[in-house]
Amino acid sequence: MTDLLALTASLVDIASVSHHERELVDDLEDLFSEIEHLDVTRVGDNLVARTELGRDTRVVLAGHTDTVPPQGNATSRILGDRLYGVGSCDMKAGLAVMVDLARRHGQPAVDVTYVMYAREEVAGVHSGLGELFREVPELLAADLAILGEPTGGRIEAGCQGTMRALLRLFGQRAHTARAWQGRNAIHRLGPLLQRISEYEPRRPVIAGCQFHEALQAVTVDGGVALNVVPDSAELLVNFRFAPDRSAAEAEAEMRRLVGAVDEFEVTEMATGALPAVHQPLLERLIAKHDLAVHAKLGWTDVARFASHGIPAVNFGPGQPELAHTADEHVNRAELVQVSLVLEDLLTSE
Amino acid sequence: MTDLLALTASLVDIASVSHHERELVDDLEDLFSEIEHLDVTRVGDNLVARTELGRDTRVVLAGHTDTVPPQGNATSRILGDRLYGVGSCDMKAGLAVMVDLARRHGQPAVDVTYVMYAREEVAGVHSGLGELFREVPELLAADLAILGEPTGGRIEAGCQGTMRALLRLFGQRAHTARAWQGRNAIHRLGPLLQRISEYEPRRPVIAGCQFHEALQAVTVDGGVALNVVPDSAELLVNFRFAPDRSAAEAEAEMRRLVGAVDEFEVTEMATGALPAVHQPLLERLIAKHDLAVHAKLGWTDVARFASHGIPAVNFGPGQPELAHTADEHVNRAELVQVSLVLEDLLTSE
Repeated sequence: MTDLLALTASLVDIASVSHHERELVDDLEDLFSEIEHLDVTRVGDNLVARTELGRDTRVVLAGHTDTVPPQGNATSRILGDRLYGVGSCDMKAGLAVMVDLARRHGQPAVDVTYVMYAREEVAGVHSGLGELFREVPELLAADLAILGEPTGGRIEAGCQGTMRALLRLFGQRAHTARAWQGRNAIHRLGPLLQRISEYEPRRPVIAGCQFHEALQAVTVDGGVALNVVPDSAELLVNFRFAPDRSAAEAEAEMRRLVGAVDEFEVTEMATGALPAVHQPLLERLIAKHDLAVHAKLGWTDVARFASHGIPAVNFGPGQPELAHTADEHVNRAELVQVSLVLEDLLTSE
Repeated sequence: MTDLLALTASLVDIASVSHHERELVDDLEDLFSEIEHLDVTRVGDNLVARTELGRDTRVVLAGHTDTVPPQGNATSRILGDRLYGVGSCDMKAGLAVMVDLARRHGQPAVDVTYVMYAREEVAGVHSGLGELFREVPELLAADLAILGEPTGGRIEAGCQGTMRALLRLFGQRAHTARAWQGRNAIHRLGPLLQRISEYEPRRPVIAGCQFHEALQAVTVDGGVALNVVPDSAELLVNFRFAPDRSAAEAEAEMRRLVGAVDEFEVTEMATGALPAVHQPLLERLIAKHDLAVHAKLGWTDVARFASHGIPAVNFGPGQPELAHTADEHVNRAELVQVSLVLEDLLTSE
């Protein structure tokens, strides 16, 4: 059996911070091109590899190739049956499972489309999957899509939406030695930040899945010069919202939560996806393997597939709580479990 | 009589934002080099022009050449007897008076040292006057120094100190979709900014001069990535303090005012100067022209001269309140009044 932990480590060791995925994609392209029965198409830094066996059913297995910036964990480190390193869990473990299945199952019982795409960890406008849906939508058509994001081996059905807004506060410049003649825009961030940090999250249950909203400042910027009372400050705030809110409803709620600001500019809006757990292949898999089904809290490309009419879920190795942390890691057993379930999906008639 | 408003406008039209003074200094060097009886020395982007007439008394007339960045007012604009434009008041008006006096009084009754220096509007470590005191201190020796900063034609005696500290707050990274697993350092700025904006300034009276302290955030920065709960945020805060506080006392007071932070790094410290109004030449000038005497609220190079044993005051055209504002301007009458007083100083036995 393949050493999936070592395979994941080899992928971790090829740095692929968002917008710098090329080297990893080159390697994956070489690797998939060597496999028989696969048609490989590269679009920019994205890769699609399809079996064309004329099966009645087609399944997409998809994963992003990029990671967030490392936090002293750029290099893989294996301790026993555990692999540490940026991207180990989010989501080179999932990619490793895809690579291994493609190599071992040239003629699966269902047609399979392996989709590997760039720039998932940055603003959605950059998404490699979005690029593929624009450029080659016909290559992505399928009856079911499974994304290998870390889920701890559970099915994460549906996902939350995410929006960002740039909040601006203005003031009046003055020399800092005569500060009372100006109005300090940075000081005005105080009450705004207080409101945001006092936010109490809503946690709705939808189709049996518990969601958990969040409101977080992600960047702050302001200042003119060292002697000047600043007349402008801005805060970029991320609102994660349950899939029962439309884009308009999410924006209205976020405006209500942050309260009065001088400017409110929506810089990103991606609605979520309601849990889609009734696709027949998926229902059978959940029952057969007694898989737990939960809500996905992060926005994922499940929503992008859903918006193109393809039922999709997240199912992958690694604990989602570890994604984007300095302690990010994945265990061998998690890789094996996910691999076995997906192998069953690909080989059952 | 020289058209001082037009002369000031010609200086405004030579852009000289801090660190970009060269073109203006080149022009001033040409101009002073053409005047008889002056020894001109250039040190970097600073200029010293001295009469060497063997008088008993020597007076420094000094001014900085740089301005803050323009705010839509990069070009001079004269409306009637008023000149608008960045630097018009702070302090190209003062420079214009110096240029005019040097041209018209080749053999004054006192020896005069004209000092023009770069980089006053930025961190003190860059100061061109500091460079001159390090490189050619002998050229700056004098019985009295008058700096042409805008004072509205009043004597501003002594000046406040200024210090900056970079305040850092830390947190714990997490994915923003699972924000409760992290700690948002930007949110922690809220209470800190509240404390700073609720600060009540102290206003001591010293040697008849009323001072007015100030505490202002001047820049704010924080953020890791669009999906990440940020683990660090920093605020640069400027504390302006009365000259009765030593450096150590000012730092202790600022620490008390901002309260608990994770790191407190002093990035600049310049103590003030107590009012020095008893220098004989100055006492006579104040009495003769019935000049008002006030405290200087901004830190100025008066303190730098004072620390080298040279009594110094600010006295220049333009309202100090207009410095660093988009509305910066100077009136013809202000230029004329300052010019007449300084002419008297230079020509009285």
